[in-house]
Amino acid sequence: MGKINLGIVGAAGAVGKEILRSLEHYEIPVGTLKLFGGSRSIGTQLAYNGTSYTVEGTSSESFQGLDYALFSAGSSISKKFREDCAQHNCIIIDNSSAFRMEEGVPLVIPEINPESLQSHAGVIANPNCSTIILLMAIEPLRRLGKIKRLSVSTYQAASGAGQEAMNELLTATRSFLDDKPFTPEIMPVDYAFNFFSHNSSINELGRNEEEQKMIQESKKILSDDDMEIFVTCIRVPVLRAHGESVMIEFDGPAPSIEESKAALEKFPGLKLVDDREKNSFPTPREVSGGFDVAAGRIRHSDQNPNTLELFVVGDQLLKGAAQNAVQILKELVS
Amino acid sequence: MGKINLGIVGAAGAVGKEILRSLEHYEIPVGTLKLFGGSRSIGTQLAYNGTSYTVEGTSSESFQGLDYALFSAGSSISKKFREDCAQHNCIIIDNSSAFRMEEGVPLVIPEINPESLQSHAGVIANPNCSTIILLMAIEPLRRLGKIKRLSVSTYQAASGAGQEAMNELLTATRSFLDDKPFTPEIMPVDYAFNFFSHNSSINELGRNEEEQKMIQESKKILSDDDMEIFVTCIRVPVLRAHGESVMIEFDGPAPSIEESKAALEKFPGLKLVDDREKNSFPTPREVSGGFDVAAGRIRHSDQNPNTLELFVVGDQLLKGAAQNAVQILKELVS
Repeated sequence: MGKINLGIVGAAGAVGKEILRSLEHYEIPVGTLKLFGGSRSIGTQLAYNGTSYTVEGTSSESFQGLDYALFSAGSSISKKFREDCAQHNCIIIDNSSAFRMEEGVPLVIPEINPESLQSHAGVIANPNCSTIILLMAIEPLRRLGKIKRLSVSTYQAASGAGQEAMNELLTATRSFLDDKPFTPEIMPVDYAFNFFSHNSSINELGRNEEEQKMIQESKKILSDDDMEIFVTCIRVPVLRAHGESVMIEFDGPAPSIEESKAALEKFPGLKLVDDREKNSFPTPREVSGGFDVAAGRIRHSDQNPNTLELFVVGDQLLKGAAQNAVQILKELVS
Repeated sequence: MGKINLGIVGAAGAVGKEILRSLEHYEIPVGTLKLFGGSRSIGTQLAYNGTSYTVEGTSSESFQGLDYALFSAGSSISKKFREDCAQHNCIIIDNSSAFRMEEGVPLVIPEINPESLQSHAGVIANPNCSTIILLMAIEPLRRLGKIKRLSVSTYQAASGAGQEAMNELLTATRSFLDDKPFTPEIMPVDYAFNFFSHNSSINELGRNEEEQKMIQESKKILSDDDMEIFVTCIRVPVLRAHGESVMIEFDGPAPSIEESKAALEKFPGLKLVDDREKNSFPTPREVSGGFDVAAGRIRHSDQNPNTLELFVVGDQLLKGAAQNAVQILKELVS
């Protein structure tokens, strides 16, 4: 495949840095690489394949000559430069929620619905982090039998709210340990040894935005409007990997444990961490920094033959964001 | 009511200390107070109502002259001294899991099933911490309509594994922040900025002991064998309050939000923390050290009219253990 000219908007952020790492990992054939950012990050030096690049300011002319732009700087920035990208025939892979539910915009997890990339109008959306991590564990099981309902509770890392939230978790925790006063600035509460309901606005049903995204995006990606999805999103004091506890109810008897484990094990990008004797299951510390999502605690219940429960953990910055966007790019390029 | 002679076994532990605080809070009329412990805690001085008491070793003669003994030193200690207590007509209120599922042993949350105290054979069991906190939020709603199924995911504090686990969480976290190596001794993994599946042994269904306790004990306390209960127990890096995300499916249409909130609000020992506009819901840091369990995130879904979701948080050492045991004592005394 020929080399591509690529821009990264929000390159100096927590996700931006992982995009660079993912580009290396997936050996994307990059020709020109341009790194863009806001005023605070202009001038920042970032390394890609051993070469140092400088973050520039983003303008309407930034996208001239670029084939693709990976956006990871929030919805308003994505919306602001959408038309400029279109004018320069630069295809957007957008990590924000700006376009995800728009008709005609593919919402893609390459292991699950790569076919939806076949038609797009210049914009492809990268799903919400918790949606990606959930569906990586659900899709292999869904191929074994129709799912009627998912009941999900998340254990979400600070990284979902950006580098500043990760820093605040560390600072708040050190203050707690040193018995010093701490006033949160990024998070709504003191994050030290604490968890809290996801701090996004709440709709008339009482659902926060994160929960709403997980429900709507899952239905779009799986092309399944009938599946009932119940989600509670909670932020826990971990740095960069999300966990999700999932109860699955199938339309009929659940697949066997052996069949389920085999399906999860052979699904690309997913690894099984499920040792009942050693009590070894996925944890955020072990999953952090890795390109695989980990699933475990696969089990039946004696109370209902149609159910299967599991726990899944994935790196929020990688598969939950940067890595999945780069995998989309790889699909488009090849 | 007359004064009682009381012994506390495991007085110097994390729960033991909260038993002393709860005895003061509930103004239990204590005459003689005896504090017992293992070899490591003998000689420890503990304050109760302004007086200092010394922890003594526990022997078969310890219970002579006592009316009640509160046990909080693990199942083996409770089993070891059961007969000695019986011989001295000393009634046991046991915080371990030793006798909970035994026929004839009342398993009691005083706000829910105080009537089961009317007949006992010298032993009353205090339920598992996660069971108590779950049912405090479920019982008021169950009185509004028959519940068909609960799907629960826990966010459990270090305190459930004792003072040493709390200390290890702090030490592990400080080591992480100082970039120093750390080897866990109490917990199976490095607890710093990490969560993990509950570290209790796993049965042939794939369920760990904590999950098994929550399912069996809930059915016994509520006298409801038909209710399906799905539980995943996860330890998160917080110190002393458990959270639980709960999806409730009723047998018919769920009660209204107003009706549900009113029922929760007027239930003794439960407070409603549910402000959608301010995004204010229960957190462990706010609940820690308090005698009330807090519930919030009360909501319906547009996907199924029979469901209600909520989040509940309670102090694991207080309502999850010491406080509930002392409330049982208060019921017995009055």
